[in-house]
Amino acid sequence: MLGDKQDFTVDYKGDIFLAYEKLNPDAVIDTLPANYKDGSPSLQLYMKVLKDDRIVITANKAPLALAFKDIVGKGRVGFQATVMSGTPSINLFRVLPGSEVKRIRGILNGTTNYILTKMYNGLSFTEALKDAQTLGYAESDPTNDISGFDAGAKLTILANLMLNLDITIRDVKIEGIQNLDSAKRDNKKIKLIAYADEKTVQVRPVPLLPEDPLFSVDGVENGLEISTDIQTIVIRGPGAGPKNAAYGLLSDLILMTRGWY
Amino acid sequence: MLGDKQDFTVDYKGDIFLAYEKLNPDAVIDTLPANYKDGSPSLQLYMKVLKDDRIVITANKAPLALAFKDIVGKGRVGFQATVMSGTPSINLFRVLPGSEVKRIRGILNGTTNYILTKMYNGLSFTEALKDAQTLGYAESDPTNDISGFDAGAKLTILANLMLNLDITIRDVKIEGIQNLDSAKRDNKKIKLIAYADEKTVQVRPVPLLPEDPLFSVDGVENGLEISTDIQTIVIRGPGAGPKNAAYGLLSDLILMTRGWY
Repeated sequence: MLGDKQDFTVDYKGDIFLAYEKLNPDAVIDTLPANYKDGSPSLQLYMKVLKDDRIVITANKAPLALAFKDIVGKGRVGFQATVMSGTPSINLFRVLPGSEVKRIRGILNGTTNYILTKMYNGLSFTEALKDAQTLGYAESDPTNDISGFDAGAKLTILANLMLNLDITIRDVKIEGIQNLDSAKRDNKKIKLIAYADEKTVQVRPVPLLPEDPLFSVDGVENGLEISTDIQTIVIRGPGAGPKNAAYGLLSDLILMTRGWY
Repeated sequence: MLGDKQDFTVDYKGDIFLAYEKLNPDAVIDTLPANYKDGSPSLQLYMKVLKDDRIVITANKAPLALAFKDIVGKGRVGFQATVMSGTPSINLFRVLPGSEVKRIRGILNGTTNYILTKMYNGLSFTEALKDAQTLGYAESDPTNDISGFDAGAKLTILANLMLNLDITIRDVKIEGIQNLDSAKRDNKKIKLIAYADEKTVQVRPVPLLPEDPLFSVDGVENGLEISTDIQTIVIRGPGAGPKNAAYGLLSDLILMTRGWY
């Protein structure tokens, strides 16, 4: 790889648009942090890349949460890494052709799920958040996670893709976990559940019964239930981590190189 | 469809080899019952179909459990419906490219899982089996299910595909549930677990802790855990049913028509 070379130097200065022109790549892989204000500069770059009939592969949720249909309708876009990292969510849907998704329900944010797991085990919200920050699961400003916004962005992507809705993050009803004083209610465990069907798209804390398939999705693990006209299936796995995100991108790259999508 | 026509008659008599010659199809879809003696007539038909560069899509486990590498190495074969019916197992693996599977672990037989769930809730083996037969989950001769053989056949297919082993059903160490007098051991729930790694391929009853992701896979549901060099993921969903099996076949047909595999 370019960056591995001992004598590697950046031989020009400029923004990613100039880099794209100079490098003339077959595929652009976006790992920029999410900019929910307007999706720049990724959104504008995608438009150019797709217009040039090149491939976009992204772990950046913001452009898709803001303008899903504009992007995905324009060309070849891999975005497995935006939801559940390397655990197939987007790409699981790709092997479910010809069935109609009725509703989706998931635990899509590892930070809040870690905090809720700790709270279920007796910690206060503040203690659990501190614990998550110490372990690097929560950022020093954890607002996007605990407010439910990050889960909302992921739900927006899933709802556009799987339910064929035409929504942005602004259309999602979002309630976070910041006001919870417990994650236990009788024998139920409170989880931050992202839910979407044809009429409702919302993120909010929901008490789950022990027999719920998402009940045992604890810590930083993520889980997603997809109900179609045929069946209800659930997938769970790690929802974050540098290696996992890289794998999400890599799996798209391999499958797109095979011409699958 | 041919069979839907009011005036439909079979205008010739003969076996499936003659039917194949006469119909000259692009794809052969096999829903014959499993013949574990020698895989005939499906195995021989597949060889002909694949030699002709046509597609095989199958819900029939026997040929693949007896001669996986001979079949899958020869051409385009869709076999999602052989393991977990319409719940992506085979096809989940197809969207996990470039990672190395270290081990797989699953509940792959709905009949035994239904019986074990009933036993966990207090029924005897005999009562639970009778219950399963009344509901149509178990056949009048349930030997293939309760002996673990059916799960072994599915494990053979998964192990060949995901771990790249070269084995047949005869290489699998199989222990069924027929000798269990309880499905509960302390706080553990006994499940019929199909397990494979590079060295071990076996089906046997295993007590699972409540925190095990397969613990809550009850009744006729199936579950599969795939551990790779990157991550451990679990998928669960219905493992049987006519609509589900048909969907398993249909999903292969659609994806193969797109040229994915």
